[in-house]
This record gives sequence, C-alpha cells and structure tokens, in this order.
Amino acid sequence: MTCGDLRPTHVGQKVTLSGWVHRSRNLGAMVFVDVRDRYGITQVMFDPRFSPDSIYKGAKELGHEYVIRVEGEVVLRESPNHKIPTGLIEIQAHSMEVLSEACVPPFAIADDTIDVHEDLRLRYRYLDMRRGDIVPTLIMRHKAMQVVRSALTEEEFIEVSTPVLSKSTPEGSRDYLVPSRVHHEHFYALPQSPQMFKQILMVGGLDKYFQIVSCCRDEDLRSDRQPEFHQIDMEMSFATQEGLFPIVEDLIRRIFHECRAVDLAPPFRRMSHRECIERYGTDKPDLRFEMEIVDATDLAKETSSALLNEAVSSGGVVRGLNVKGGARLSRKEIEAYQQVVVQFGFKGIAWMKRQDEGLQGGIAKYIGCNEQPRWIERFEMEVGDCLMILAGEKSRLLKALDQLRRRLGKDFDLIDPSRYEPLWVTDFPLFMWNEEEGRMESETHPFTSPHLDDLDLLDSNPIGVRSMGYDFVINGYEIGSGSQRIHDRGLQKKIFSVLGLTEEEIANRFGFFVEALKFGTPPHLGIALGLDRLIMILIGTENVKDVIAFPKNHWAQDLMTGAPSEVYEAQLKELGVTVGESTVGQN
Amino acid sequence: MTCGDLRPTHVGQKVTLSGWVHRSRNLGAMVFVDVRDRYGITQVMFDPRFSPDSIYKGAKELGHEYVIRVEGEVVLRESPNHKIPTGLIEIQAHSMEVLSEACVPPFAIADDTIDVHEDLRLRYRYLDMRRGDIVPTLIMRHKAMQVVRSALTEEEFIEVSTPVLSKSTPEGSRDYLVPSRVHHEHFYALPQSPQMFKQILMVGGLDKYFQIVSCCRDEDLRSDRQPEFHQIDMEMSFATQEGLFPIVEDLIRRIFHECRAVDLAPPFRRMSHRECIERYGTDKPDLRFEMEIVDATDLAKETSSALLNEAVSSGGVVRGLNVKGGARLSRKEIEAYQQVVVQFGFKGIAWMKRQDEGLQGGIAKYIGCNEQPRWIERFEMEVGDCLMILAGEKSRLLKALDQLRRRLGKDFDLIDPSRYEPLWVTDFPLFMWNEEEGRMESETHPFTSPHLDDLDLLDSNPIGVRSMGYDFVINGYEIGSGSQRIHDRGLQKKIFSVLGLTEEEIANRFGFFVEALKFGTPPHLGIALGLDRLIMILIGTENVKDVIAFPKNHWAQDLMTGAPSEVYEAQLKELGVTVGESTVGQN
Repeated sequence: MTCGDLRPTHVGQKVTLSGWVHRSRNLGAMVFVDVRDRYGITQVMFDPRFSPDSIYKGAKELGHEYVIRVEGEVVLRESPNHKIPTGLIEIQAHSMEVLSEACVPPFAIADDTIDVHEDLRLRYRYLDMRRGDIVPTLIMRHKAMQVVRSALTEEEFIEVSTPVLSKSTPEGSRDYLVPSRVHHEHFYALPQSPQMFKQILMVGGLDKYFQIVSCCRDEDLRSDRQPEFHQIDMEMSFATQEGLFPIVEDLIRRIFHECRAVDLAPPFRRMSHRECIERYGTDKPDLRFEMEIVDATDLAKETSSALLNEAVSSGGVVRGLNVKGGARLSRKEIEAYQQVVVQFGFKGIAWMKRQDEGLQGGIAKYIGCNEQPRWIERFEMEVGDCLMILAGEKSRLLKALDQLRRRLGKDFDLIDPSRYEPLWVTDFPLFMWNEEEGRMESETHPFTSPHLDDLDLLDSNPIGVRSMGYDFVINGYEIGSGSQRIHDRGLQKKIFSVLGLTEEEIANRFGFFVEALKFGTPPHLGIALGLDRLIMILIGTENVKDVIAFPKNHWAQDLMTGAPSEVYEAQLKELGVTVGESTVGQN
Repeated sequence: MTCGDLRPTHVGQKVTLSGWVHRSRNLGAMVFVDVRDRYGITQVMFDPRFSPDSIYKGAKELGHEYVIRVEGEVVLRESPNHKIPTGLIEIQAHSMEVLSEACVPPFAIADDTIDVHEDLRLRYRYLDMRRGDIVPTLIMRHKAMQVVRSALTEEEFIEVSTPVLSKSTPEGSRDYLVPSRVHHEHFYALPQSPQMFKQILMVGGLDKYFQIVSCCRDEDLRSDRQPEFHQIDMEMSFATQEGLFPIVEDLIRRIFHECRAVDLAPPFRRMSHRECIERYGTDKPDLRFEMEIVDATDLAKETSSALLNEAVSSGGVVRGLNVKGGARLSRKEIEAYQQVVVQFGFKGIAWMKRQDEGLQGGIAKYIGCNEQPRWIERFEMEVGDCLMILAGEKSRLLKALDQLRRRLGKDFDLIDPSRYEPLWVTDFPLFMWNEEEGRMESETHPFTSPHLDDLDLLDSNPIGVRSMGYDFVINGYEIGSGSQRIHDRGLQKKIFSVLGLTEEEIANRFGFFVEALKFGTPPHLGIALGLDRLIMILIGTENVKDVIAFPKNHWAQDLMTGAPSEVYEAQLKELGVTVGESTVGQN
C-alpha cells in the first residue's frame, strides 16, 4: 500500500503506510501528519482517543522529512482535500514507528514554489528529488526508454553494448581521455558516439543494431548540453531511408503516445536541406507556425532605397518575414528586434506596415505606388501586417531571419505548446569548404554517402554535391542525425580523393575502420536520436538538467559528489601521469 | 526476405535476397553460391538457361565474402541439404548485383571449425562475428536484457541512468581516472558500480530503481574478467529480503525460460554463509552435485595416524569428501589430486577406499576394526567409494576441499550441464579482520546492515556479527551480491566506531554520502547481478570474451581499434597532464 493508493472504497480497512513526514499540524487535541512517498501524499491523524498515548506524543515530535511507518484505519475525512487523489480519506493512526530521523533540510521540501538557487538544488539533488518534477520526469524517461526498446525489439533490432573504454579519434569534438595503467603514455577515450562500432557491427553481419547509450564530449557547456549525454543509436543493413524512416517514425509516435498521450501521424513531413534553408533560414525549423522567409531581391532593385540597392548590387539578397498583425508594433518595438540581428552583422531591420491606406512607415517611402501591390502580393500582406526585411549576404541573412522568426513566433504567441511538428530534413550537403585551412571537409564524416544523382558533380562542383545525410527535427530542435553510409570501396576512394587525403592520412585518421570496410560491407544506414533532447521536448523544458538524474553544473562539476576531485599521488604514479606545475617547478 | 526464411511452401515465388557469398562452387554448366546473412544460408543457382550470360559470368567471379543481391525464383533442390532449414529449396537466379567486393579475409569464414588464434579473432572481430556463436550470443544477451527490463518495469522499478563521469572513492578496486580539462589536477572516476547513486535515489524518494549499466575496474584481468563489465543493478525502499528476493527470483526464472527454455522453480534454496562454508568450503557452492564436506575431527583422534593426530592436537580439523565410485582410482590417480591442494599448503590427501573387505589402502591401516563402521557411517560410504581427507587449519582446509570437490565433480562426471542450481547465500559476516593493518574492516562496505539478532555482539564479539548481506549463486558462480543497508543514524555511528573511524576519516572517505543519509533515509536494500557472468552461464562458456561484442584482451587492449593508444601532445596540454619520463628528462 502506498501513499497514493487510498480512496473512500478503502474506508474501514487496516493499512500500513511508510513515507516521509511532508507536513504536520499540531492542533493540540490531535496531530495531523501528511505522509509522502513517490506515489502520493496521505493524511494521518493521531488522536489520543484511538492511538496509545506514546504514539500521539511521538507524533507531536516528528520533524519534517522523518521517515515513519504508520498503521491505522482508513476513515473519511471531515474536511476533504479535493486537490489530491487521496484527499477524501485519512488514516486514523493506531501505531507509528520512526524508521529514520532527519536533520533540518537546507530548503523546504513541502513548499516547492520557493525559488532555491540551482547550486543548492544540485548539491542536495536527493532533496530536490523529493519536491517538484524530477522523479516524474525520470519515470517518463524510463517509459520512453521502454517504448524504444519494445518497438525496436519487435522490429528485430538487437541492443548491443559498445565499449566505454574506446579509442581516441581526431574527428569530432574533444575526447575525454583515460590514462592506461598497463600501457603508460597510452589512453582510452570515452565514446563521443558508438559510430564506428555500430558500422563495424554491420560489417560483422548483425543487420539491425540499436543501443541507448551514454556518450561523452569534453566541450564547454550550455544550458542544453552536458558533458555526458544519452542517445538512441541505431544502424541497419540492406536498407535505405525508405526502410529506416518508418521505423523511427513509429518509434517517435509510440513515445509521444505513451508519454504524453499525443498522437502524431506518420509519415512525417520531409524537406530537403536546400528548401529548408530557403524557407526558414535554418536546417531545424520550428514548423508549429508559418511565417516563411520570402525573397524580394527582384523587388528591391526597383526601390529608391540606397540601402537595398547597394545590398543587391554587391551580390546580396533581400528577404523578409511578414509579421501578421505586426502593424500594431511601435517604431520603438520594431527597433528592439534589431538586437536579434546585430549579432549577425546587420545594422537594422527594414520594415513597413500595411495600413488601410497602403504600405506605410519605415522603407515604404522608397517604394513607388505602382510597386506597392507587388510587395503586398509577394508577402501576402493583409491590412495590419508588418514586413521585416534584411538585405545582405545570403547565408548570414538567413541565419538572422531564422532567429528573428523564432523570436517573433514567441512574441506573437504563434506557438501552440501542445503541438508537435516532426520533420525530416534530407539531402544535406556532402562537403563544406574550410576557409581557414583552404580545403574541402566532410559535413559530417567521410563515410556519408553522396546522393547518387550527384555523383557526376564530385569532380566538377563538389560543394554542390548533396549527401544522403538527414536530420530529424521537432519544433525547431534537432532530435537526431544520420546518413546512408558508403559501402562501395571505389566510391569511398573517390571521396577521400576529393578531400585530398593521402593513403597515410587515411590510415592515421581512420585506420582500423577503413580496413574493416574492405571485407564485404553491406549497404547500411543509421541514425542517433538525442534522448535527453527528446525528453526535454516531452516535458517542455529548455534546461537539460531537468531530464537527468545527476547532472553536472555549468563547469562540468557534480556539486553533489564533488567530482571531479583531487586524487592520491599514488594513483597518478601507477598511471604514469603527472599533473600541475611540477615540471615547471623543477627548474 | 532473409536467407533463413525460404521453405518449399515458397516454391514458385520471385524473391530478392541479400547477403554475403559464403561458399561458391563452379560446376562449369552452372554455379552454386551459398548466400549468408544473420538469419541463415540459402543456396543460389546460376544457370545460363535462366539468367543472362553476364549474370552467370559474374557469378563465376564472385569471391568469398562479397556482398550481393540476388533476384530469382524459389525452386525445389534436386539434392536437398537436411542440415539447414532452407536446405530443401534454392533460388534460380535471374539477376544479381555485387553490392560490395571483399578482400580475402585473414581467416576462413565459412569453415568455423578451423582454430584461429584469439588475437587474430579479436583484431578482426567483425569477421569472427560472421562465423560461430558471437551473434547468436549477442541476440540472447539482448533477449535477457529485454526480459530484465520488462519484468522490473512490471514491478514498477524505474531505470535511471547514473553518471559515467563519477567521483573517485578510495573504497573498492582501482579506479579508472579521467582528467578534467576545466579543473586541472582534478579527476573524474569511471563508476565501479552505481552503489552510492542508487542509495541516493532511495534517499531522494524513488523507491524502486534498476539499471543495466557498464562499470569499470582497473584490475589485472583473468579469463572471466574484463576492465568493463555490465551489471543489473537494483535497489528498493521500505522492503526487506522477503520483498526483494522473489522479484530477483522471478527475474532469473524469466531469463532462463526465455533464453534457454529452462524452467527454474522459485523460491530458490537459501543457505546461511556459515552453513555454506561448513558444507561446501565456499560461499559459492556448485549444488549440481552432492559430495558434501563431512567433519571427522572426532574420529581422527581415535586413529593411530600421527599426521591426523598432530593436526587435531594443534587445533586443526579433519574433514573429507566421500568420492562415490572413487575406489576405482589408482594410488597414482589419487596422488594426482594432491596438486589441487598443495597451493593451499597441504602436503597431501589422506585417503582410503571401501572395498568388499572393509576400508582399505591409504590411511585405512591406522584405523582400528572397531572404528571402521563409524567412518563408514559418518561418510555414508558404500562399497566402491573412496574417502579423501585433509587435516589442518580450518579455513585453508575448507578452501582446499572446495577446489578438490569442484575438480572431482568434473572428473567423475557428476555435473549435468543442463542443470541449474540457484542459491541464496545469506547472513554474510559483517566484518573481517585486516591482519596487516591490525584493524577491523567491513566485509563489503560500512553501510551494510548488521543482522538485527547480533546487535549485542557489536561490542563483545564484532567478528562474530552477521550482516544482512547476501549473494546469489548459480552452479558455483557468484551471480550477484547485495545487502540490506543501514538507515538508522545511531546504528551507522556504532558501525563507524567499531571500524575505528574518526569523524574526519568518515568525512574524507564517505563525505557527501554520509551527509545525504542524514535527511531521512528510508529502509532499503539492493543487489547487483553480473550480466556478463549470467550470459556465460546461459551459454556455458568460461571465457567472458564470448559474451561481449567488443572485448579487451588480457592486457586490457582492444586489438581491433588499437585502444589504448597514444594521443596528441596538445590534448594532454589542454588537460594539464604530463606523461612518461619528461619530468626526469628535464634534469
């Protein structure tokens, strides 16, 4: 029997409850104690008429967060509490045992409306767990993981544990390293992802793999990043996107159904990377609201605005967003949005409103009367709308408009928080140009397959080659990323040569992995879905710490355990490792 | 459609199969190719009468382990192969595509009877996966994990991921350390177990936790040990053994049922640690065969054997095993068993046989005729049995008899490999005496609860105090270990004082954890089951590498990836770490 179970149907039953003293009220003649466990709160009444004197007296002395066990009879409450499921009954205590006393906690447990500094909450994570949403979130997270495992098991995917002690590779982010005691001057690396291992499993003939796995990246943290994160990692052989996407879609559908009772309807939308960037300025658009980016470069040429003209003549573009109902913004309010775009190098936002009289304000004065209808038509402006326009270099401009669009979506309340808009973004570029090093780089890794329609561009226009890489996006967040991999050795060589890699560099950087691909590699593809991010979306938080049992703080510290911490000199000696200024100090 | 699917019912169907070229035979007029995938092998026939000439010619040139896709019609085979499920049919190929060529593998895939050196198999793990039992084992392992998760989820246990980047603690085995880049001279440790985190979850109010988790210990390896291992970790609040054991038993029952179709029948046997040691000389007895240790110290006094008499008079014991049917052993064969006991400091085994004429051979001559019946009765000797006896210090003697018993069990074929004998060993000692440091130590950790019946011995005879710790054993292997934890602060203080720990030592060694226990700790207990060992028992191997996808070798190296490996100086610099002789070299 738990503290969340009892209802009026139990009246008359003798029960035993255990839990924490959540609140207690000493009314003199009797003592009321709210007993709490993971499942709920039940009121217990200590009344000298029904319980031995010692019990009644003991109840008076209970402190907050004492752990007790109570036996008694379920009775109807005189004054019901309709806010909690057990609020119609209470326990008339016959006996009570203190299982464990408690010191006064550093913050109140019973009142979780009080704002407690995050550092204190992290240090006493176990007390914070007794309040608020951490435990319900962990339960939802468990449920999501169970759904993933059931769904993928039904599809004959096999969960395989890949090593924690892995090999450091120069690709990707910074590795966490682990010195080897047996082989001094040698290090393991914690896995940034099981990418190579899962592809190796495909080479080994296990055609459907998955794993819910902890990965580590030693990067500087943000509110949505932790040094260790969790992904739902998948790979399958002898398949293409048409085989993988429905499996992932069903997985996501089931997670949302089980965890949030939200019914998504696969197949999900798909959009090419190119189209996505053009329409939303980003490869992870929030599709819960419209407001697409519209091009007006051609119209801009016809205006008398020097600013727009100059931008166009120097090779830039002019694009904008129609802010529905934006005409109610004051000039000052519009100018406040400039702070969103200045970080991208834009001095300001050009704007105009459609009023009953036509386009007004801002740059309207540069637009001839004859031209106005074309602008209105292009942006589908109605009376009361406001156009916001940027002019300049295309890629910066798109990034800025993406940010502006997200901000406007919030400010104009265009986003229904109960809505979920999943999207596949496909056909990512295969290469990107590394300006600094003056060479071509893989957008993800060199094992991503080029789009088969673009093979003839590999020599003539590599930067224009699309890949078979894809992202999975929900509500403006990237949830997952993956690709069809190259399984043909000839094509793999071609890609290496476009990247300008020598045999030696290939061996150094990808060594054993390239060797493995030589022995008969099946066509295969995969994806990694971010579990933490998925749970964040399910519960609607922007703080990744909310979805992890024992998170690190902004400086990668566990404030509860004190990790990282100093260790004994003897431990380091065994590892053949020296730290600190000792080498300098010797001089 | 997979290479394991097709049966005579499919005859006439057009199918597409993909897989690896397992074997091929060129008969001139036609070519037969066995195509293999995870699910099975199917024979494909290339005959110029049914397939275009180019396809037929292409088939001739297929090398081993090429990856191909074949389309064709299912037909009955003229000469069926009854050894494989698809052996009644074959595919008459209409078309064929080479998806990926393959270099000649370093060892044959199709013939897995050839002995390949383990190093080579580990280096080319992905090729070894295409032969033999690795993939079926990984599939069984997945099945076992799924059973665990389903069973525990049904019992409202919540799977919670605990940190990989944890805190180094001086307890237990050697830690793997991870230098912190953000906090130089500080280190994370990889978890040896999530012990403290799971107890903290109980303090936080999550009353039922589990996790299938990778743990790491930097110890020298044996054939049944890896630097990283996997455990099924559990903890629950407001419960005792009577609550936990049935849950674990049902878990184990379901795993054996699902993975091996073996039906174990809970409740499992229980035996106290004390009884276990007396009867089998070990806390992890193999109960698949009898042959218990029997005491004959009293009888030994009555013999004229100087050896036995001396052992007894110097405080030792005399105990032995009745080897059923052992009388057929020659003196030489019996003496060969001495090598089992010499490592424990015994010079030899005393023995005698029961023949038709009575006790004969070995020490029989020291036993008077009147005494013989007592020996025969004590050891329940029948004609044809052989008694093996050791005399000396009890604890060494019991260890030696355990080893001798295991060896005899094998040699006399007493062990039915299809039989599983689970056992709970309870009431482990709470303390042990550290001879070197001259002080009392916890048998496991100082948070294990003493047996409540033995509390009054804590002062008078601490070494005699039983704990509420328990092991779970199957067939002579420890599968799991756990205990009821202390939740009472007074009792916890008492234990610390018996251990002679000062407040400062307590803070240094257990710091945050002891603090957490102050704020209202519920009664709780838990267990950790070794997943790797469990799978080893399920498939009947002694080599832990057989049950892990990517194992390390004896020197903690991953021969496939080359981990651990050298890293760039720049990486170490960022971490503030120096390796090797550089500090010495500066002088």
